Amino acid sequence: MTLETTKLKLNCDMGESFGHWTMGKDETIMPYVHMANVACGFHASDPDIMAHTIQLAVKHNVSIGAHPSYQDLLGFGRRSIAHTPEQISHLISYQIGAIQSLAAFYDTQVDYVKPHGALYNDMMANFDVFEAIVQAVMPTGLPLMVLAKKDNTAYLDIADEYNVPLLFEAFADRAYKDDGSLVPRDKPNAVHQNAEDIFYQAMQLANFGTVTTIKGHTLELQADTLCVHGDNEESIAVVKRIYTALTQPIS
Amino acid sequence: MTLETTKLKLNCDMGESFGHWTMGKDETIMPYVHMANVACGFHASDPDIMAHTIQLAVKHNVSIGAHPSYQDLLGFGRRSIAHTPEQISHLISYQIGAIQSLAAFYDTQVDYVKPHGALYNDMMANFDVFEAIVQAVMPTGLPLMVLAKKDNTAYLDIADEYNVPLLFEAFADRAYKDDGSLVPRDKPNAVHQNAEDIFYQAMQLANFGTVTTIKGHTLELQADTLCVHGDNEESIAVVKRIYTALTQPIS
Amino acid sequence: MTLETTKLKLNCDMGESFGHWTMGKDETIMPYVHMANVACGFHASDPDIMAHTIQLAVKHNVSIGAHPSYQDLLGFGRRSIAHTPEQISHLISYQIGAIQSLAAFYDTQVDYVKPHGALYNDMMANFDVFEAIVQAVMPTGLPLMVLAKKDNTAYLDIADEYNVPLLFEAFADRAYKDDGSLVPRDKPNAVHQNAEDIFYQAMQLANFGTVTTIKGHTLELQADTLCVHGDNEESIAVVKRIYTALTQPIS
Amino acid sequence: MTLETTKLKLNCDMGESFGHWTMGKDETIMPYVHMANVACGFHASDPDIMAHTIQLAVKHNVSIGAHPSYQDLLGFGRRSIAHTPEQISHLISYQIGAIQSLAAFYDTQVDYVKPHGALYNDMMANFDVFEAIVQAVMPTGLPLMVLAKKDNTAYLDIADEYNVPLLFEAFADRAYKDDGSLVPRDKPNAVHQNAEDIFYQAMQLANFGTVTTIKGHTLELQADTLCVHGDNEESIAVVKRIYTALTQPIS
Repeated sequence: MTLETTKLKLNCDMGESFGHWTMGKDETIMPYVHMANVACGFHASDPDIMAHTIQLAVKHNVSIGAHPSYQDLLGFGRRSIAHTPEQISHLISYQIGAIQSLAAFYDTQVDYVKPHGALYNDMMANFDVFEAIVQAVMPTGLPLMVLAKKDNTAYLDIADEYNVPLLFEAFADRAYKDDGSLVPRDKPNAVHQNAEDIFYQAMQLANFGTVTTIKGHTLELQADTLCVHGDNEESIAVVKRIYTALTQPIS
Repeated sequence: MTLETTKLKLNCDMGESFGHWTMGKDETIMPYVHMANVACGFHASDPDIMAHTIQLAVKHNVSIGAHPSYQDLLGFGRRSIAHTPEQISHLISYQIGAIQSLAAFYDTQVDYVKPHGALYNDMMANFDVFEAIVQAVMPTGLPLMVLAKKDNTAYLDIADEYNVPLLFEAFADRAYKDDGSLVPRDKPNAVHQNAEDIFYQAMQLANFGTVTTIKGHTLELQADTLCVHGDNEESIAVVKRIYTALTQPIS
Repeated sequence: MTLETTKLKLNCDMGESFGHWTMGKDETIMPYVHMANVACGFHASDPDIMAHTIQLAVKHNVSIGAHPSYQDLLGFGRRSIAHTPEQISHLISYQIGAIQSLAAFYDTQVDYVKPHGALYNDMMANFDVFEAIVQAVMPTGLPLMVLAKKDNTAYLDIADEYNVPLLFEAFADRAYKDDGSLVPRDKPNAVHQNAEDIFYQAMQLANFGTVTTIKGHTLELQADTLCVHGDNEESIAVVKRIYTALTQPIS
Repeated sequence: MTLETTKLKLNCDMGESFGHWTMGKDETIMPYVHMANVACGFHASDPDIMAHTIQLAVKHNVSIGAHPSYQDLLGFGRRSIAHTPEQISHLISYQIGAIQSLAAFYDTQVDYVKPHGALYNDMMANFDVFEAIVQAVMPTGLPLMVLAKKDNTAYLDIADEYNVPLLFEAFADRAYKDDGSLVPRDKPNAVHQNAEDIFYQAMQLANFGTVTTIKGHTLELQADTLCVHGDNEESIAVVKRIYTALTQPIS
């Protein structure tokens, strides 16, 4: 294990409760991640939950990311809703500002932006959506988190045009195709169920910058961060194990 | 008429459409006001309408104010909803940040904060609510607009504690009680219906810093700004007349 | 003109205001239609506006239709949102029941169901959606309004399976393709702008049961009802003219 | 124990999840109650969750009640929101119809109406609200559930005027004042924490039709039903014990 491994940060969706409804085990998982993607009230959360999530992140010295989405509480932001690029920019800008203001209220700041759910998928699949998001992020000076693919040139070209830094994320629990895109969830073996497989893929990404694709090929994937999940006891156990491996002192 | 008159700015609620629904004649009234109180999506508006309202204000060189409210589209923010002071702070902080971000997206900025509707009334009636709002406004460095009363000491004391400047507003179309509070809308003669009366009260406030109360007394009222309305042709006509009187060159 | 013409009823979207926002000129157009498609609170309206619209329809002896939609106030129900067929059934059932109850509260009843906007389009384009709607309508015993096409067999087959009567509607202001589908709004000449053209198409439908397609062919179209719009003075003027022609005594 | 005891039905709030958020242990508690107060989408739930809750009630032969509320997902219907009596009627009518329709879709029916949260409290505290609710319930022919007090005459007089039957409910876990109203939650000892106390109060109500007030007096309270809660393991354990005692064969 080399110093390189500490470069791979763990990011996790947080603050996805709403009003009187609770979701996720934020208190439990927060100590084991580096970056908290904090919902902004459009697919989950409300100003109070955002405030509490910000305070929890501060307590554990975790970086705060804006996690904007389509306006769809009922569908949890997982349903694509038609927007013009201009509407996408406004949607994103509104939500980033809202969480930045709450962060400032608690003497901290937002460090990055990661779109949520269907908006994330649409961003990766549609360059007009991606550019609209980049434009909204630009005035904030924040980096934008996107999916690391085999070839990220097209995304980098657009982002560079607006001087928006990109953060590339990989997944430990998802199977990859040879082009670096994720095997869709409705395909067989799309999601690793086995904790050992998830841990192994995380270590391969952290130590070698590669993943083994579903066809068995070795794919280089330059990732800044690894997306993890704190939904249940099993996923939290794997996250703790990955976190410990990534942060242990080099012997 | 003296130089003093130019100090009294006209402020007007703007951007209160929502989705496919239109409210107000923003295009018509914008050229005749100095300050636009822009709805932030909780009692009216959405990210697109906020963006368009910001652009309209920029076009007419009008100052942009955040106009946050309780979350109540159905009731247009006119119904009081129980909140703890902490919840009030989060509610306000969220909305200010949202519009600040959209303003930055259009290369401009928010200049002040004026709570809307029931939240405005609750702020004036309840010092806990007022303090919670002041706390939310503090990190933004913006001034907060409140109702000018005969004695504003208590509000100033709290605001000073947090270094939040106050802007005091008066009304041209509302009858005043002797203590400088407004005659409630459900009382007789609470709202001036006659354009001449509205214009006269505006001029008295602008030129002499006084209003004549419903009991006929002369009340000193130090106001920075006058709240006007662009709902219909009649109200717009009066606003134009007041605006012209306030901004005409001194002969 | 024959007795047949009186069979063609005019239907119009109504009750599309929301909270403090007004849309449409319901008071003006109501006397000139036979069927009011009343919004159910998901793309527009709220319980109060539904109640007032129901009372207005009763006053003018106009038939009341449930006008359910996707849950999308911001997009006015014009954006398709992914649902399973079962979710479609629940969505529709909920809204029909809500308006039936308000109708009963005002001693009247709902007479038919017409899906709104994107849900209407999805219903015509996707038989799974259509069947889910038919299933939701079945327990109410109400007829379901759909678009009259050249060949309605597939829709009738499904509806017959559930014993749901269909009402077929045609448009006076939309251009038709040869298969009886509407020319999409983003194509040239999709919507007739000229009042004379609209009136002519209405009369052709009423008197001959045909439309002239955009390619100039004569298409048989068996319609029970004609969809009209009361958005502005021009459209209302045409509706009045069509209404008068349809209801005048036979000389 | 007498036959009388079987008259006291257990009612429990159900179907209070929303979208992707879960609340309550409906599957666990449903077998141990007689009446399910099913949320109607205004303080919790959505058409899908309503449908699933209805099916769960049918499976366990549990009576379905409409559980309408103020429109306040964020506040879970626990905040009072100003309405005119007419608006209250529309609000209630809408929600009852929505759930009746979904019940009919699943070949069952709604058996009673119980307002939720702040609306329930406002109904008991304000006769205008109570009468508005009674008026909304009237056309459905359903009974309305209210709080059993020492003297229910005023409520009965209004309900009788509209031929709306009342169901009276008592609480096993709340302390009572001498007039039969509940000790407010913010007072000491307002809520029984001890399972034994809850069970004892339930049995006293079931077997003797009395409660012992917080001042130690014995108060007659004619109740048709007992409100129980399925929020957590402890409350469910007590409900099971009460249910078993109420339904056991008389030896």
